[in-house]
Amino acid sequence: MSLGIVFLSEVFGTAMLTLLGCGVVANVALKGTKGNSGGFLMVTWGWGIAVFAGVYVAAMSGAHLNPAVTLGLLVNGKGEYAPGVPVDAASTLTYFGAELLGAFLGAVVAWLAHKQHFDAEPEPASKLAVFSTGPAIRSTPWNLVTEIIGTFVLVFVILTFGGTPSGLGPLAVALLVVGIGVSLGGPTGYAINPARDLGPRIAHALLPIKGKGSSDWSYSWIPVVGPLVGGTLAGIVAAVVPIMATAAAK
Amino acid sequence: MSLGIVFLSEVFGTAMLTLLGCGVVANVALKGTKGNSGGFLMVTWGWGIAVFAGVYVAAMSGAHLNPAVTLGLLVNGKGEYAPGVPVDAASTLTYFGAELLGAFLGAVVAWLAHKQHFDAEPEPASKLAVFSTGPAIRSTPWNLVTEIIGTFVLVFVILTFGGTPSGLGPLAVALLVVGIGVSLGGPTGYAINPARDLGPRIAHALLPIKGKGSSDWSYSWIPVVGPLVGGTLAGIVAAVVPIMATAAAK
Amino acid sequence: MSLGIVFLSEVFGTAMLTLLGCGVVANVALKGTKGNSGGFLMVTWGWGIAVFAGVYVAAMSGAHLNPAVTLGLLVNGKGEYAPGVPVDAASTLTYFGAELLGAFLGAVVAWLAHKQHFDAEPEPASKLAVFSTGPAIRSTPWNLVTEIIGTFVLVFVILTFGGTPSGLGPLAVALLVVGIGVSLGGPTGYAINPARDLGPRIAHALLPIKGKGSSDWSYSWIPVVGPLVGGTLAGIVAAVVPIMATAAAK
Amino acid sequence: MSLGIVFLSEVFGTAMLTLLGCGVVANVALKGTKGNSGGFLMVTWGWGIAVFAGVYVAAMSGAHLNPAVTLGLLVNGKGEYAPGVPVDAASTLTYFGAELLGAFLGAVVAWLAHKQHFDAEPEPASKLAVFSTGPAIRSTPWNLVTEIIGTFVLVFVILTFGGTPSGLGPLAVALLVVGIGVSLGGPTGYAINPARDLGPRIAHALLPIKGKGSSDWSYSWIPVVGPLVGGTLAGIVAAVVPIMATAAAK
Repeated sequence: MSLGIVFLSEVFGTAMLTLLGCGVVANVALKGTKGNSGGFLMVTWGWGIAVFAGVYVAAMSGAHLNPAVTLGLLVNGKGEYAPGVPVDAASTLTYFGAELLGAFLGAVVAWLAHKQHFDAEPEPASKLAVFSTGPAIRSTPWNLVTEIIGTFVLVFVILTFGGTPSGLGPLAVALLVVGIGVSLGGPTGYAINPARDLGPRIAHALLPIKGKGSSDWSYSWIPVVGPLVGGTLAGIVAAVVPIMATAAAK
Repeated sequence: MSLGIVFLSEVFGTAMLTLLGCGVVANVALKGTKGNSGGFLMVTWGWGIAVFAGVYVAAMSGAHLNPAVTLGLLVNGKGEYAPGVPVDAASTLTYFGAELLGAFLGAVVAWLAHKQHFDAEPEPASKLAVFSTGPAIRSTPWNLVTEIIGTFVLVFVILTFGGTPSGLGPLAVALLVVGIGVSLGGPTGYAINPARDLGPRIAHALLPIKGKGSSDWSYSWIPVVGPLVGGTLAGIVAAVVPIMATAAAK
Repeated sequence: MSLGIVFLSEVFGTAMLTLLGCGVVANVALKGTKGNSGGFLMVTWGWGIAVFAGVYVAAMSGAHLNPAVTLGLLVNGKGEYAPGVPVDAASTLTYFGAELLGAFLGAVVAWLAHKQHFDAEPEPASKLAVFSTGPAIRSTPWNLVTEIIGTFVLVFVILTFGGTPSGLGPLAVALLVVGIGVSLGGPTGYAINPARDLGPRIAHALLPIKGKGSSDWSYSWIPVVGPLVGGTLAGIVAAVVPIMATAAAK
Repeated sequence: MSLGIVFLSEVFGTAMLTLLGCGVVANVALKGTKGNSGGFLMVTWGWGIAVFAGVYVAAMSGAHLNPAVTLGLLVNGKGEYAPGVPVDAASTLTYFGAELLGAFLGAVVAWLAHKQHFDAEPEPASKLAVFSTGPAIRSTPWNLVTEIIGTFVLVFVILTFGGTPSGLGPLAVALLVVGIGVSLGGPTGYAINPARDLGPRIAHALLPIKGKGSSDWSYSWIPVVGPLVGGTLAGIVAAVVPIMATAAAK
């Protein structure tokens, strides 16, 4: 498969992800929507199904949708990102670029879909929350720890999917993302994906959003670095455990 | 397959869709029901499972249940609406007519199932809400934009289902509809289906509902035109992307 | 398969159904539980998964768990209740008896599991609600209508499952029951199963429940007759529609 | 398969279980999280998906994750705990030890992920609730009864999964655990797993949690003994019923 197809596929898939993901936060957080104050469980289902839809859209390229997944696959040493897509510098950068661009574009469309409610909402923090995550209690080390753990779970469990037969397809990832949300999303809002956070944050900075405040760039590196570390650790552990197991078997 | 079978299948399936879909709004919105004030998440699960049940019932005819889906398939150029049902003027009008009639009939039955609670409910707007959608903030252009985006997601992702192997069957569409509801249903109540909105609105106008108010005909064209535009765009994009991809592959 | 196996299978399956189904109402309705006031959506998931678990347990006998399903299959004219179980008077009575006995036993165990919260709960109506359904607004004709419609949906959609390939198995029925609950459960609490209502009501009458009130026998025939009518109609319509379709095809 | 692999597999899987399971309670119970007061339904989805993820991780060893499941399989007399793992004293102790260790480790990581919110939470009982279950109304006999019933349902229905074809894989167990939570989790918080309760309780006792109170050791044996009894009963009943059925068939 050419990298052009990979690029197109991941742009569309990641745009679907942030369109529906940022959308559910808009529905819960912005003034006057029908889902206003719909609760955290609704937010987690929204993001779970956002991943579900994105996986269908980007199925052709393996549906990474997330640089932490791409990086996890790289360090895991599988050799291919998707059938016919070898792991190398060019393909890695193609995934990263497409994921970031797609995440940006999806957030723009989510803003258009909720334009009137962005205008009606008085609170700048609620507007930023539609685009990007922020910590409940700000702390560089602990916020990083939470994002590393959440992304580790995401990438590690995804890497185990292949070994378990089931007909769930994209539903398995969707449920996993719902689970990470309800269980590990409380302290930082579970970015667990650098593109999902950075792409929409750039959109927030560039879009002419009425009454918007800061894009909180001082926090912005945590939901990038934390997930990259978590995904890398997951890829390594998932590669090492079978080796340990084989050794234990002798 | 004869168009008579298609007609019957889509009437039954779309009636099941609006019976359960209008039903969940009645349960949440009307006075004295056991699910009163049950929340937006419950409404979205209700509509999701309404589609789920309708897809089983209308499986024989491809379970469009929605003129925007029919139109999306038409412009996508697949050539068949369902196995043995060629795309032509007669079949297209059969789907459209059956979807509208079924949506009307299902809403009538949903009204019967909640007859006492319609009588007990004092607010005319809550009664109309059971049948048809209305905007949270009224604005012709932005309400159209939201319906176009929501329906684009519905039809575009459905068109990708074929390319992704999974045993989910009707569950995939159901979850997608839940996701569109929680993520893009906040501004307009996500008609994303001209028949689902217009059929029940006609029922609202014709039925002897105690203390009913206006059927809000001034808004009624938006949840018809918006979804038809969104479905058409999805059919075109889903047809064009593979061509771009093939070109990119050269 | 012998009728003894059918009996045992349906007793266990229907007991599992009312154990989990009555259980979730106890958790929401009785004083001091951890799920107190957990909401209608939680109740519907509880009953949905109760059916899910019951279907696994009674898979051998076709998992009717419900006289309305048994009756729907009878009038539908399939000839077999389960592989190797012919439709006749003896097998029909075996299913009916096992379903009623199982529903009774499951309710007894649900009571034991929540014994302390029955003792703590001051309101007799909340205690009865754990066992059996009651109408939000009492009206013989309209309560019957609602139960007939709900059960029609249940049995009609179940009868369409065979014609749609999917790997969902018991999940399809579970989701359908969640959907009927949220969409059609508001006026009467969706018995949609004579055994599920009558068996636990007998348990309520017989058990030494502290501070219990009336078992509301004057209402008790509605959640028996309504579902039997609804299931019969579904079985007939599901048999007639294909005949109409075949005629339409000529 | 060597017992070293079994050990490693169950440690990882059970750690995943308590990481996500204790995590959702932290999100709901601790001060300042984004999911604070998210409700009992969210807690049950969290534990359900915790099992879901744990089953993928420990698929190689049969994913017991729970001494009550191990014991149920032992008394059921299947002869194997997983493909290539015979039932004997060494394998049984390997499962038990790995489950307890994994449950301990997962709780430690859940604590790290919510470190700041443990520090912010003033109520010691809320901190313990993240780790271990406690009764809504304290009563040795009735708390035991509830845990026995809940675990019986878990192990009995799991033992029926094999006999019902479906492509649900780990989703079936996940939904079952959600169902047991909403339906039988009200009185005791549904440990239904000795390791899930005891491992995290040991973590609570050992970890330097700011402002923690008692680890409530006086209650701690109930969520160990109750589930072991319930699992044993389920294994026996699931073995005896087919024998009764065969006898009935003669």
